Amino acid sequence: MTQMEEAKRGVITEEMKKIAKIEKIDPEKLRRSVAKGHTVIFRNVNHDWVVPVAVGQGVRVKVNANIGTSRDIVNVEEEIEKAKIAVKYGADTIMDLSTGGDLDFIRRKIMKAVNVPVGTVPIYQAAEEMLARGKAIIEMTEDDMWKAVEKHFKDGVDFVTIHAGVTKEVVEKLKRVNRVVGMVSRGGTFLAAWILHWGEENPFYKNYEYLLELAKEYDVVLSLGDGLRPGGLPDAGDELQIAELYTIGRLVKRAREFGVQTMVEGPGHVPIDQIPTHIRLMKIASDNAPVYVLGPIVTDIFPGYDHISAAIGGAIAALNGADFLCYVTPAEHLGLPTIEHVKEGVIATKIAAHAVNLTRFEEDFKIDYQMSLARGKLNWKEQFKIAFDKEKFIEIRKERPTKSEACSMCGDLCAIKIVREMLGHKARS
Amino acid sequence: MTQMEEAKRGVITEEMKKIAKIEKIDPEKLRRSVAKGHTVIFRNVNHDWVVPVAVGQGVRVKVNANIGTSRDIVNVEEEIEKAKIAVKYGADTIMDLSTGGDLDFIRRKIMKAVNVPVGTVPIYQAAEEMLARGKAIIEMTEDDMWKAVEKHFKDGVDFVTIHAGVTKEVVEKLKRVNRVVGMVSRGGTFLAAWILHWGEENPFYKNYEYLLELAKEYDVVLSLGDGLRPGGLPDAGDELQIAELYTIGRLVKRAREFGVQTMVEGPGHVPIDQIPTHIRLMKIASDNAPVYVLGPIVTDIFPGYDHISAAIGGAIAALNGADFLCYVTPAEHLGLPTIEHVKEGVIATKIAAHAVNLTRFEEDFKIDYQMSLARGKLNWKEQFKIAFDKEKFIEIRKERPTKSEACSMCGDLCAIKIVREMLGHKARS
Repeated sequence: MTQMEEAKRGVITEEMKKIAKIEKIDPEKLRRSVAKGHTVIFRNVNHDWVVPVAVGQGVRVKVNANIGTSRDIVNVEEEIEKAKIAVKYGADTIMDLSTGGDLDFIRRKIMKAVNVPVGTVPIYQAAEEMLARGKAIIEMTEDDMWKAVEKHFKDGVDFVTIHAGVTKEVVEKLKRVNRVVGMVSRGGTFLAAWILHWGEENPFYKNYEYLLELAKEYDVVLSLGDGLRPGGLPDAGDELQIAELYTIGRLVKRAREFGVQTMVEGPGHVPIDQIPTHIRLMKIASDNAPVYVLGPIVTDIFPGYDHISAAIGGAIAALNGADFLCYVTPAEHLGLPTIEHVKEGVIATKIAAHAVNLTRFEEDFKIDYQMSLARGKLNWKEQFKIAFDKEKFIEIRKERPTKSEACSMCGDLCAIKIVREMLGHKARS
Repeated sequence: MTQMEEAKRGVITEEMKKIAKIEKIDPEKLRRSVAKGHTVIFRNVNHDWVVPVAVGQGVRVKVNANIGTSRDIVNVEEEIEKAKIAVKYGADTIMDLSTGGDLDFIRRKIMKAVNVPVGTVPIYQAAEEMLARGKAIIEMTEDDMWKAVEKHFKDGVDFVTIHAGVTKEVVEKLKRVNRVVGMVSRGGTFLAAWILHWGEENPFYKNYEYLLELAKEYDVVLSLGDGLRPGGLPDAGDELQIAELYTIGRLVKRAREFGVQTMVEGPGHVPIDQIPTHIRLMKIASDNAPVYVLGPIVTDIFPGYDHISAAIGGAIAALNGADFLCYVTPAEHLGLPTIEHVKEGVIATKIAAHAVNLTRFEEDFKIDYQMSLARGKLNWKEQFKIAFDKEKFIEIRKERPTKSEACSMCGDLCAIKIVREMLGHKARS
């Protein structure tokens, strides 16, 4: 029985109890939200060693880090290291998007390396295996696609991106609509190409109920992928994106009847003033399903700094209701990220998520409060202890040393020091 | 005659014409806004070689970079290099906040090294010269303070931070109010300590009209500093901050009667959901004076990454009406920034400013449009040409190479490539 089915029956599962304890929230409230599909719980029945995580209403905004090999760079050890670094710096989940090397081996290795929930995009494997066999992607059979899905489910993957909203209808529309960047979703494109080539409907849409049966069996969360998300600011909010969103909204509601957990994926590239509208529309179209956004980045002209462009967009998205932020690394739009890029991407996204969480959860605000207290006392040991990235803290303090008890920015002209000495102002403790 | 006086008389000055041309806006609209004090123009009458810059209503959001020596680190060449790097990566103005070495020499050197407007905080010099002479800061005489101000004005400084809102009344209040981080404004603290020690009123408040006469003579923009800005999220929006803001609001209106240009400085450290309120209140209290914010950072626990925390806060501030973003570097709260930190800080802040500007100015949006177009065509040369930081672009492309015509993230599985090949989709040109 899925978490959602249990919740509907009024049962507070072990997973709900665990999550409620970690997040310090009311388990009954969590249960009600899971029952309605407003919150999902990542916990494939086969993923015994995972610490379950909830995404959605009433819980903290979460951060996902995408890792995985590519056709150009296959270095399994590096990917394992990326997974560990991502978790160390605050990723709540990992997605293995590998498309190079032995995909089954890599996925299983990564899943064993960490205990956070893991997501995948099964169609990548179906497509990659075509190329590996010297075939074209569109030569995938429906059976190949379903096999990939089932394999991932059996392996214990907790959530999968399925582009069930890339329908024949919207692909026909794509041919007519003038887009600047066409499609940028890999999985979405594989399916669009397949649909166009064979003249057939998207198997995940056509046989959606079969997908639901499978998802139910393993309690996998379906992350309904936005294959038609904008690939640049000029395409944001166009009719293709919104048409697909409403298809996805319908699919969410159908899944709920089956007791299957779903999320809605969102853009991508969005002008900063449009972000609240995008997020609210996603919530409206899906009757408040958890919203999972990739960024969004708020400008396209800063390659090398897309983690910052995405942190801005992600923070605004989260403030307006997005529940789950997929990180973006400095390597986005340029290449496969390095371990260092992964770290930078996770931290930038964590800042966005934490900035919103601290406005909603007293526990989270307290950490910032403690830091302010330590600063007010010029207590550097305490500041170090609270600092999210301690290595970075030490690195800069050492690189730019001071002779004073303050820092090398102000030295003896430190405002805090002067307040303390001259005004006899005592900081709160 | 100041830009504001000219504007009030209906004159479109040479500076207004230049700015209108650069920003591609209507010079008459700019004039009207300058006349009302809703926009300021940086152009000290003695700063012949400066390219004037406008900040406020109807013009682009601008970025300032703080540089300058400290008591711990005096390296004039490094500061010159910082000024140049800051301008190279998009700083519209520089503030020289030097507090170590020969301050007059350094300020003049920096002003000669760049042609953007330069701001300072004259009270720093008055205070530093006390320490240099083995005295206590509070031993400054009123005359010392005025001398510093006049020297900077004569040197051609285009805008100065003056903490005229740190009144005797608010300092008395500070003793009673429980703050977590007390005061974090250096200039504000020097004055607060001075007021408390001598029992005298803040000279810049008491003799505000003398300040206005001086500012008028050189047409220096007074940036009314928020000496009582919060130094941590818990102090944001407290009665001290808001009391000072309303004093500053009064001072803005008095300055307008004198034909003197003013801006209002803002926080600092603000929870993300409070930012719109802070900015709107600043606009209300000052009758729409240009708003100059320092960040604000939206969390305190990520030292080493405050440029990102500030980019998030700055973007939201700008979206809600802030006109001028002071950058924050990764070294904030840890030490004096290096040249590399300055670069990182400027770019992060530039992202925030550009993200908002592109929603208001077609010309700015066009750059992103061109980038999207280049991406849709997998035209890497064009992407390189448009990329804001070309060195970074090349660095990552080289570090993570691909054998495909796409990038090493997707290689031959590139969505854009597949769309082009399989769907025959033609990007717009």
